[in-house]
Amino acid sequence: MTTPEQYIENNRSRFLDELFTLLRQPSISTRNEGVQECAELLSGMMKQVGIETRIMETARHPVVYGEILKEGAPTVLVYGHYDVQPPEPFEAWHSPPFEPTIRDGRIYCRGSSDNKSQLFSYVKAVEAFRETVGEVPVSIKFLYEGEEEIGSPNLAPFIKEHGNLLKADLAFFSDSHIHESGRPLLILGLKGMVYVDLKVQCAADDTHSMRATAIPNPAWRLVWALSTLKDKDSRILIPGFYDDVRELTDLEKQAVAEIPCDEEELRRYFGVKEFLPGRSSKAFYFNLVSEPTCNIAGFNAGFTGEGSKTVLPARAAAKMDIRLVPDQKPEDILDKLRRHLNARGFNDIEVISHHFLEPSRTPIDHPAVAIIKDSLRDVYGLEPIVFPNIGGSGPNYVFTKILGVPCFVVPHAGHDQANHAPNESMILEGYYRGIQTAVKTFEKLAAQP
Amino acid sequence: MTTPEQYIENNRSRFLDELFTLLRQPSISTRNEGVQECAELLSGMMKQVGIETRIMETARHPVVYGEILKEGAPTVLVYGHYDVQPPEPFEAWHSPPFEPTIRDGRIYCRGSSDNKSQLFSYVKAVEAFRETVGEVPVSIKFLYEGEEEIGSPNLAPFIKEHGNLLKADLAFFSDSHIHESGRPLLILGLKGMVYVDLKVQCAADDTHSMRATAIPNPAWRLVWALSTLKDKDSRILIPGFYDDVRELTDLEKQAVAEIPCDEEELRRYFGVKEFLPGRSSKAFYFNLVSEPTCNIAGFNAGFTGEGSKTVLPARAAAKMDIRLVPDQKPEDILDKLRRHLNARGFNDIEVISHHFLEPSRTPIDHPAVAIIKDSLRDVYGLEPIVFPNIGGSGPNYVFTKILGVPCFVVPHAGHDQANHAPNESMILEGYYRGIQTAVKTFEKLAAQP
Repeated sequence: MTTPEQYIENNRSRFLDELFTLLRQPSISTRNEGVQECAELLSGMMKQVGIETRIMETARHPVVYGEILKEGAPTVLVYGHYDVQPPEPFEAWHSPPFEPTIRDGRIYCRGSSDNKSQLFSYVKAVEAFRETVGEVPVSIKFLYEGEEEIGSPNLAPFIKEHGNLLKADLAFFSDSHIHESGRPLLILGLKGMVYVDLKVQCAADDTHSMRATAIPNPAWRLVWALSTLKDKDSRILIPGFYDDVRELTDLEKQAVAEIPCDEEELRRYFGVKEFLPGRSSKAFYFNLVSEPTCNIAGFNAGFTGEGSKTVLPARAAAKMDIRLVPDQKPEDILDKLRRHLNARGFNDIEVISHHFLEPSRTPIDHPAVAIIKDSLRDVYGLEPIVFPNIGGSGPNYVFTKILGVPCFVVPHAGHDQANHAPNESMILEGYYRGIQTAVKTFEKLAAQP
Repeated sequence: MTTPEQYIENNRSRFLDELFTLLRQPSISTRNEGVQECAELLSGMMKQVGIETRIMETARHPVVYGEILKEGAPTVLVYGHYDVQPPEPFEAWHSPPFEPTIRDGRIYCRGSSDNKSQLFSYVKAVEAFRETVGEVPVSIKFLYEGEEEIGSPNLAPFIKEHGNLLKADLAFFSDSHIHESGRPLLILGLKGMVYVDLKVQCAADDTHSMRATAIPNPAWRLVWALSTLKDKDSRILIPGFYDDVRELTDLEKQAVAEIPCDEEELRRYFGVKEFLPGRSSKAFYFNLVSEPTCNIAGFNAGFTGEGSKTVLPARAAAKMDIRLVPDQKPEDILDKLRRHLNARGFNDIEVISHHFLEPSRTPIDHPAVAIIKDSLRDVYGLEPIVFPNIGGSGPNYVFTKILGVPCFVVPHAGHDQANHAPNESMILEGYYRGIQTAVKTFEKLAAQP
């Protein structure tokens, strides 16, 4: 009899064609481009392998929900997101952003790693079980949302509303990437986030810059305001910002210390001469895991084209993502930012919050940790690395805090996936390893006493 | 016999049609759009009224040079520029930027006030003399360049090279605007300028902002660097920046004190709630005349579109125009900026200087001041206001310092011309007043003992 593992090997080519179909469909949530079409496409593909699937509406982009149940078996909730980041800047792509192209063992496409290949692996795992042993050994509930790249505004309400439907023993979160050494990862948490636009307007219109002796310049206002938020040593200066930061436990610190770090390779890969002060070597991962951030994601004012234009801008705007660690609270951080700006005389700067995500960390001593590590070790032939949390953000907290289940992130994309950037790519083998890992993990979970 | 003054009145409609032809021709020097075509068009129009005209090449955009000489009469050099600023942002224009449109007594068009109507007035004054009294009472040399909006990089070399050709007794500079009260202006100087791009790059490419714990962000670098250049009281913090600032003389101070200032009207017009600290009322003009500036004309980094994108930018850039007063020297100020950035640890910030302009101030006690004031008083029926210098910059110094002649700026555009901004406009009557003022001034100069 063919095993699920053999079935996957026998169907590599067709599995890839099906993934490419999903990748060709743009699904840019921030400007609602192709999102509904992608939900319908994915739903059809899930039905085709026997998953009872439906498209469930939210206030903005729909959830693709699916079920395949087995009486008496543990229930796994699988989370993923079928939406993608905008592909801009177009000119930086070496192949069209929505035409999957294989080069050097990678699939280049927007959404290839983040998150379509990774969520689709679980769908193909179901097929592998059903076409060989006839049934999946665990109950699986699929929750594939279309709003992750805009901060999952409707995921928490959806989970609150459908708490019974989504009841599960543990959750798998299909996102993020493996270690740059090629070793597999198990991730137990994600950072939270406050994303804000800072806006300031001083005059009705742009004007000739000769009036700079009298008319306030919003770019200067923003420069001065931002310069009070963080110092050159990366210390965030908002009063009380660090108050609720929870220290890592000894077990967590030990896990972080075991993360290999090739500093030179990292610097080479990112094209960075020097990391921030105190962030080299082991500190790279210690800070990535334990430290909140305050990042300028964008800044815009006045004339930014080629050549010179002597203009006094009327408006300036910055975009910032502030990533949080347990137990920081998004609302509290936003409030502290606003109060800080007011206290420093920047009442004129408007703060518009796009979205909030709470940070999350599943306990490192949960029994599923060993099962997942075993499965990854089998598939990769390498010792897995465990992150108490990674640097990225995601709606992990909706499982750990709202649904109350432990949440495990098991990624298969490369560390250099360039997600959120031009030339995003997925390791071709990572797609198949994802399917194999799902199969093995579900087998082991079902076999648990 | 028809006087030149009457001739102008009799030919208003045709004079306007001819100006519109000139305005319809784009001539955006910063990106070389239509510049050569505009030079040829203008040259043809000058020849048509009997000015011996030729297009003289420079390293970039040509000079349109013309002569009409009268033996034994004083020689006037008329300077103007036929190039214009870029029209962006297009969507802010109420009529197409290169289609002259009359609304409420104004000609709306890019280049209408800055500087095509104003330079063209002198051409039409020649026609008015020749078609009535038969000859122009003074010798006129026309120097119309195509690079003013990019800082006139080739004007100084051109004047140095053609010193004999350009020999004159005094220079008229056709640019700038009248006072917001409607009273005419005589301007005796312009500010200098250093225009720079500040650029910084920290990584090879944009990356996911989760890496903000280790990878330096060029937007932060630029924010920190800029925040060291100027404080919230508009004091420029570059060491030695103010060293060479020459105080106004008592006569100059008196002229500035006589400039009327309706602060409320100014604030209303610009849509500004408050001017910078200490810049209201009389201080508005005192600072406009006497104070150098350090303006952020543009700032760009990362993602600045709609929605949210969590990116750590690889590059950030700012554009700054620094306006100088006598006796500041552009090279010296650039050098001080560079040294300041280095001293504050910002060696990573590249400073690229686009162009330099020296400041200039013609002595307020020169005899031509009275002649021009008389002419303006005749044409406007209002008492002229005298500015020792205005807030704007221009290559005035090439006349006062290189050619060694006094230089007089006699503007006819409105104070609300919105030059360098969307919906630039010229006062329709200002165009005709320009022609009349030129006629009267030349008559009076010729009649001087």
